Amino acid sequence: MSEATSQTTNQAASQGAGGKKYGQLVSEEAILKSLDRYFPNHQKEGIALGRGDDCCLLTSTKPLAVSSDLFIEDVHFRTAYATAEEIGHKALACNISDLAASGARPLCFTMNLGLPSSVERGWLNDFFSGMGALASRYSVALVGGDLSKSSKLLVSVTVFGEENSRTGFLTRGGSLPGDVLFVVGTVGLARTGLHVMEKDGRQAASSWPHACKALLSPEPKVDAGLILARAGQNARPPALMDVSDGLARDLPRLLGMQGEKHPLGAELLLPAGALHREVVEWCRQNGRNPVHEALLGGDDYCLLGSCAPDMLQSLHAAIPELWELGVVTDSGHIMCNNECIDDLHGFDHFSA
Amino acid sequence: MSEATSQTTNQAASQGAGGKKYGQLVSEEAILKSLDRYFPNHQKEGIALGRGDDCCLLTSTKPLAVSSDLFIEDVHFRTAYATAEEIGHKALACNISDLAASGARPLCFTMNLGLPSSVERGWLNDFFSGMGALASRYSVALVGGDLSKSSKLLVSVTVFGEENSRTGFLTRGGSLPGDVLFVVGTVGLARTGLHVMEKDGRQAASSWPHACKALLSPEPKVDAGLILARAGQNARPPALMDVSDGLARDLPRLLGMQGEKHPLGAELLLPAGALHREVVEWCRQNGRNPVHEALLGGDDYCLLGSCAPDMLQSLHAAIPELWELGVVTDSGHIMCNNECIDDLHGFDHFSA
Repeated sequence: MSEATSQTTNQAASQGAGGKKYGQLVSEEAILKSLDRYFPNHQKEGIALGRGDDCCLLTSTKPLAVSSDLFIEDVHFRTAYATAEEIGHKALACNISDLAASGARPLCFTMNLGLPSSVERGWLNDFFSGMGALASRYSVALVGGDLSKSSKLLVSVTVFGEENSRTGFLTRGGSLPGDVLFVVGTVGLARTGLHVMEKDGRQAASSWPHACKALLSPEPKVDAGLILARAGQNARPPALMDVSDGLARDLPRLLGMQGEKHPLGAELLLPAGALHREVVEWCRQNGRNPVHEALLGGDDYCLLGSCAPDMLQSLHAAIPELWELGVVTDSGHIMCNNECIDDLHGFDHFSA
Repeated sequence: MSEATSQTTNQAASQGAGGKKYGQLVSEEAILKSLDRYFPNHQKEGIALGRGDDCCLLTSTKPLAVSSDLFIEDVHFRTAYATAEEIGHKALACNISDLAASGARPLCFTMNLGLPSSVERGWLNDFFSGMGALASRYSVALVGGDLSKSSKLLVSVTVFGEENSRTGFLTRGGSLPGDVLFVVGTVGLARTGLHVMEKDGRQAASSWPHACKALLSPEPKVDAGLILARAGQNARPPALMDVSDGLARDLPRLLGMQGEKHPLGAELLLPAGALHREVVEWCRQNGRNPVHEALLGGDDYCLLGSCAPDMLQSLHAAIPELWELGVVTDSGHIMCNNECIDDLHGFDHFSA
């Protein structure tokens, strides 16, 4: 049915955020040439055949962690205020963040790309450039994928990570009452960025630089994930996940609170003073509760985990960005600063 | 930016092809429950952890073949004339076809699903049912993925296949002048199906049953791929690929004719009498050249390969669907029935 491509009226992708002007439309040949420029199809241990055939061939002898995510225009990002480089960066960063949460070492990725007919060559080069810079930083090779027309710009990435030196992978399971809950990174800052950019567009970045950067250019916590996996090698491993839908929604997932007969709970201590000053300031200006904003979060891409209390000190020393969020309980409820927040829900794509 | 979901006006997914009526809209919880029903998260060798965590964990000790494809409403399929079951089947079948082309044994897959707000629970169940039946037939486990709102229905699948009994994988490379070109399956039949269904919708299926079935329910040639891989174990392996963009476009890819200094060529013998009678009949009624239609193809999902002439007899015996298409030459051109078809192009998403 490939010939029956839909007519698209979408023009957003051709209007560069940040004042850039783009011209020429893309052809398939131009896209493939551009891919080769930004994603060298080089040899790498564990990859016997890269992109260009029906399948890529992976010959890593190590166990693999695999994650796959969608990144869709006007659902996950807007071309009106995110630059092409930022969109390319974030499309891959969100996926690498899942590898970080498993304590895996990034190996390679596939990318399926849906492009509106209005997308322009220069925009696409910048998109590849932003993604390619991140790929190169973590030495992840682009090993395959697919190109298609699409009414909205869409990116579907699948990432592959290897086990690092027989440390094993980390998962969400295994928290026990009394364990310490910790976070690596910030919470709520990207949500503030979303608020201000949805309202004021790109110009919000001058008043709220950290919040906008947190939204547009999240940095996956790969090194922290590897350190946490190593910490679990000769002890009870930390439970770990990345926070993409907000603490309030993701913490119950870490604790396996859905459908359990005797669910765990948590007691959190999250003073507003511990939050980023841009979160606090935006809440002050807009009459919002900064702690609730931080808990609702969304797009944080921090790591959330729990570990035995005696592991904490060495983790603090090894991961400067790590901070204590609270403790795991057996109450079946999540309390934050003595308030029950069971009914504070993070983001759900399909809720009314 | 997850909150900034786009408003969708798409209604197509709620109108079942084949006369089915659907009602209730989906919730995320309902989707996850439905997934568990149609895709049991069972244990399987090579999969240490299935879906539900940040990553799935693959512990297969065999080399892996990986392929990823997009399947987008109104680009790759239409809900107006394809049923939910057929769309679910085909979204996975196209990907498994890539594993077949590599001679790999299907292991598991991830699925990213973008759904319009109008999509209904019954439709989605039928979609999962069609995909689940194929998944179960090949024992491929659903190990992960992502859900999102989307203006158009979209499916992005990544499949994983294992090497079968140390046969090695097959690739497109390695054809030599004098090799026999062969096809496993039909060419041009799905294209006829596309013509008639785009014109007359679902009712075309009563007059053109084989063509419509070829379009809507392609069957990946997994067993043939495994046999071909085995044939290459103690001899020069066949070159192999699957045909998705039509013979005219895919054969030059098999022969590596792009950018080569001394490219290979081919001499094909494809009498109209060898084509499916529905292709021939449709061409007669519409004043088209049936051989050109067959070469333009698109959505065939047959296998196209080449092998040394002395391998052919045993392949014929082992693969009843296999037929000879012609021979590889060193001419740099593709001739079919003595006509040069270098300028006959198959489908290109980004051509004008």
